[in-house]
Amino acid sequence: MKTFEPYLFRKQFPLLQNICSPRHDKDDQHHAIVYFDNAATTQKPLTVIDSQQDFYCQYNANVHRASHQLSSKATLAFENARTLVQGFIGARSIKEVIWTKGATESINIVVQSLARNTLMPGDEIVLCTSEHHANIVPWQIVAEQTGAVIKILPLTKQGYIDSTKLDNVITDKTKFVACAHISNVLGRINPIEKVIAKAKAVGAITLIDGAQAVAHLSIDVQALDCDFYVFSAHKMYGPTGIGVLYGKEELLDTMPPYQGGGEMIKTVSFTQGTRFNSLPFKFEAGTPNIAGVIAFGESINFLAPLLADISKSYQEYEQQLLDYCYHALAKIAQVKFIVEGKPDIGVIAFTLTGHHNHDVATSLDTYGIAVRSGHHCAMPLMAHLNIDGCLRVSLAAYNTKVEIDYLIECLNKFLLNACLEQEQPDENGSGKRASSNEMVDILTLFAKTKGWDSRHREIMLLGKKLPRMEKSLRDDETLISGCESLAWLKVAQDSQGYYSFKADSDAKIIRGLLVIVLSALNHKTAQQIHKVNINEYFEKMGLIQHLSPSRGNGLLAIVDKIKLLAQ
Amino acid sequence: MKTFEPYLFRKQFPLLQNICSPRHDKDDQHHAIVYFDNAATTQKPLTVIDSQQDFYCQYNANVHRASHQLSSKATLAFENARTLVQGFIGARSIKEVIWTKGATESINIVVQSLARNTLMPGDEIVLCTSEHHANIVPWQIVAEQTGAVIKILPLTKQGYIDSTKLDNVITDKTKFVACAHISNVLGRINPIEKVIAKAKAVGAITLIDGAQAVAHLSIDVQALDCDFYVFSAHKMYGPTGIGVLYGKEELLDTMPPYQGGGEMIKTVSFTQGTRFNSLPFKFEAGTPNIAGVIAFGESINFLAPLLADISKSYQEYEQQLLDYCYHALAKIAQVKFIVEGKPDIGVIAFTLTGHHNHDVATSLDTYGIAVRSGHHCAMPLMAHLNIDGCLRVSLAAYNTKVEIDYLIECLNKFLLNACLEQEQPDENGSGKRASSNEMVDILTLFAKTKGWDSRHREIMLLGKKLPRMEKSLRDDETLISGCESLAWLKVAQDSQGYYSFKADSDAKIIRGLLVIVLSALNHKTAQQIHKVNINEYFEKMGLIQHLSPSRGNGLLAIVDKIKLLAQ
Repeated sequence: MKTFEPYLFRKQFPLLQNICSPRHDKDDQHHAIVYFDNAATTQKPLTVIDSQQDFYCQYNANVHRASHQLSSKATLAFENARTLVQGFIGARSIKEVIWTKGATESINIVVQSLARNTLMPGDEIVLCTSEHHANIVPWQIVAEQTGAVIKILPLTKQGYIDSTKLDNVITDKTKFVACAHISNVLGRINPIEKVIAKAKAVGAITLIDGAQAVAHLSIDVQALDCDFYVFSAHKMYGPTGIGVLYGKEELLDTMPPYQGGGEMIKTVSFTQGTRFNSLPFKFEAGTPNIAGVIAFGESINFLAPLLADISKSYQEYEQQLLDYCYHALAKIAQVKFIVEGKPDIGVIAFTLTGHHNHDVATSLDTYGIAVRSGHHCAMPLMAHLNIDGCLRVSLAAYNTKVEIDYLIECLNKFLLNACLEQEQPDENGSGKRASSNEMVDILTLFAKTKGWDSRHREIMLLGKKLPRMEKSLRDDETLISGCESLAWLKVAQDSQGYYSFKADSDAKIIRGLLVIVLSALNHKTAQQIHKVNINEYFEKMGLIQHLSPSRGNGLLAIVDKIKLLAQ
Repeated sequence: MKTFEPYLFRKQFPLLQNICSPRHDKDDQHHAIVYFDNAATTQKPLTVIDSQQDFYCQYNANVHRASHQLSSKATLAFENARTLVQGFIGARSIKEVIWTKGATESINIVVQSLARNTLMPGDEIVLCTSEHHANIVPWQIVAEQTGAVIKILPLTKQGYIDSTKLDNVITDKTKFVACAHISNVLGRINPIEKVIAKAKAVGAITLIDGAQAVAHLSIDVQALDCDFYVFSAHKMYGPTGIGVLYGKEELLDTMPPYQGGGEMIKTVSFTQGTRFNSLPFKFEAGTPNIAGVIAFGESINFLAPLLADISKSYQEYEQQLLDYCYHALAKIAQVKFIVEGKPDIGVIAFTLTGHHNHDVATSLDTYGIAVRSGHHCAMPLMAHLNIDGCLRVSLAAYNTKVEIDYLIECLNKFLLNACLEQEQPDENGSGKRASSNEMVDILTLFAKTKGWDSRHREIMLLGKKLPRMEKSLRDDETLISGCESLAWLKVAQDSQGYYSFKADSDAKIIRGLLVIVLSALNHKTAQQIHKVNINEYFEKMGLIQHLSPSRGNGLLAIVDKIKLLAQ
């Protein structure tokens, strides 16, 4: 497909053809999943999926090192993908295209192989307020290793890097300037040409995080004249586990290898030392992600013609979706966008006044709509905007206006239900003591539910039973902070050795889940607590996914904390 | 399948069912590819291939960070794979199972996060003579970074780490001992229990490279009591791009993160610093190779029951194949095993007296047999054994005795043909000057060939036309050293600016390819040389795979060198 046709485009994604089972289907309507979490990862077209299958079924072999035909065929396909990437971003040579695990590793390579070896105490690294953690933490680590200092480029009210402030932050002390082409929360195309020009004027090295840009914009690294450009395949219709570090050859040549191993050497000797291979192999130790690279090549074959299409039909459709979604959301009174104005690409971040993001997201999930809530790996941005987190709807060109209509409908349903619930008698604060049969009661309750939507409703109702924890108890000591919401846990032990726990959360859904957890673990001895098989309990209720190990205060972290406290 | 049944086992590998097209099929027999390069990478069973397909088609989403169902399902499958690995190697906890790109990255993490921060000048790192480059180069890098010294454990004549010499090498100065469970060339199960015990006695930290062991042995890291154990999925019927670092929790806890990014943090702040996530996530920055991890889980589901089977039918079959192959090879007079005695697993390394390994391997390839020739990423071992390289036949449980018979038959054919060729008049050394039409002649010649076997024969015949280069000219200056064979290139320029090249190689196949390259590039001006589209020329002849970028003296390296010299 060289000219974009929405229907034909969408048809190429097998996952989007699936019927979503656990939906509100009173009207017997079954929908496909509505996937609005594209900034996290996109779905994959069949050609990309099939190319991995084809590799494993037809010519799987290790690359670069054997005379046999399977290996030759694999090597040719593998290196062909590199040439495709070179063309896609306009690099001078395939030597400038290094395969990595993803954008995160690409940044770490630059930081550890170049910055760590060149930064001196007091040298400055310039980042931006809205960076993803992947473009912050590696720099914090190297700043600590070298004594360099991190400076921050401020944002405009619309969420762009403020180009009028460049001169204040980028100075003769600046050695590296690293920023996102497009923020993964704000969806603004940063004025990186200006940032790069200013950095060059002071002799600083530039790294652009293109993770959010590559699926939407044509990239020309030579025109940008950045020193490094990084991105991941899985955000541009490609597979997981593979990404690119683009770097100027003259810089890559000066950098020592990042990892040692096979593939990246010319000769190895215990007595005469080791000589490293030439670019790009110097940076590619070990057997690479061969299937991933080959499938990545297919995703470029899929995407590149659309981005190159002079009619701009692909980008125009993306803009239409963005317009439609932004204005529809703007009509909901409770929607509060986190910065002023419409984003440049389909990444729309907002909160719903009076409601916890996590509760909104789990409610939308019961309707089969996937959005993201939380800090989106951009905690400094959240701190800057003075919010705990936000909701993010991120679009891809396979999304439709019908899906957006459905999102708006479900958001309005959520608001209506929340309003009705408030009018119902609330057991909140009644302090009702857990009965010894509470676990059995809850199991009985969930045995009657059918589908995720009714289980979700029961959890929300249970949440109402949880006494609120006094504000004075919600402190650093009791806090279990997380990616999507906060939770607090306080323990006491009586003279017979029984533990009693108080718990609370800012998200209703977590409050409900806390009731379930406490019904199993509260008012028990340490021995009894450690005997409980909480996995089995959650599995019986069809809620095992809520126990999956996750960052921060996933429920498992709370369970672990309870077990730790009861020792 | 819990008890091993050879036929049923083999049937599960789609690639092995393919008919191999470019074969010697005068008797009209078509065979499937004979894959004896299993130590490089194994083929994949359908369940593993399908699990990736299923992930992308049914529940593709990013893991650990969203409330929506796709993400929950992906996270559960992803973490389930970690639990499978934990069980597979007998780790105490999932916290001890870190996902990496592969064994190579696993070693680099230990080296850079632990060794680099603890080694002092004069401290000693102990490796073994037969290590893979992946377990040498990272240590050489850290030795240079810290001033530590590398010591080498010697081998017995049979190729085992010599356990009688441990006391001489592992001393109070030793801080790290790193060695392979099984060498990728020798196929010997090293006495790692003794090595680990000795290392512990002096307080050194142990790392075992299990890349070659995991497909053949039951691993119990607690019984071994090593500190780290590393391996890759793709060598145990799993996908490319994913591997494991097992480490003892108490050690992993002391190590700083290797890479910074999302996923590996608890909180990030520009003003209050950053707190890292707990294990295993501390070492898993960025979106992981989700599809790879899930498919890896499937490969463990596939393999673990066979290794756990008390009847040992899987391992016994592997031993039968090994016995059969080893003894059949031993009957060929020219076969010279590189160390004494039969290997412990199906990795058999040998040379063929009077013949270059590369020539043997490419000849076998014309019969559809994939073996490996070269240094096998173990140059120090080659130096120790005083050989340039060797042939390696590496078996998997899907191989058959019929395939081994076919290998022996083809090796004998190769020897017979080589013998007959020697009796034919040889143009070697005739010094015949390349005619100006040589390129056209060669194209005409190859246009008549059908299939890889006849092209291969033509290349070998062309090789005979290449005058041998005087021994005195084969020096460091003219050498282009490579993974599978050596080549030499000497340039001269006449008064009219025409370049003439002399070239030679120790492998006949490379000599033939050099004739083809020189027919295109010899006796030309710099301008003319740079105008030649060598890719197109090779493509026309159906030899493009010989130009694929490779380590060392891949033909492309020679072409590049010619272009560099003619500037």
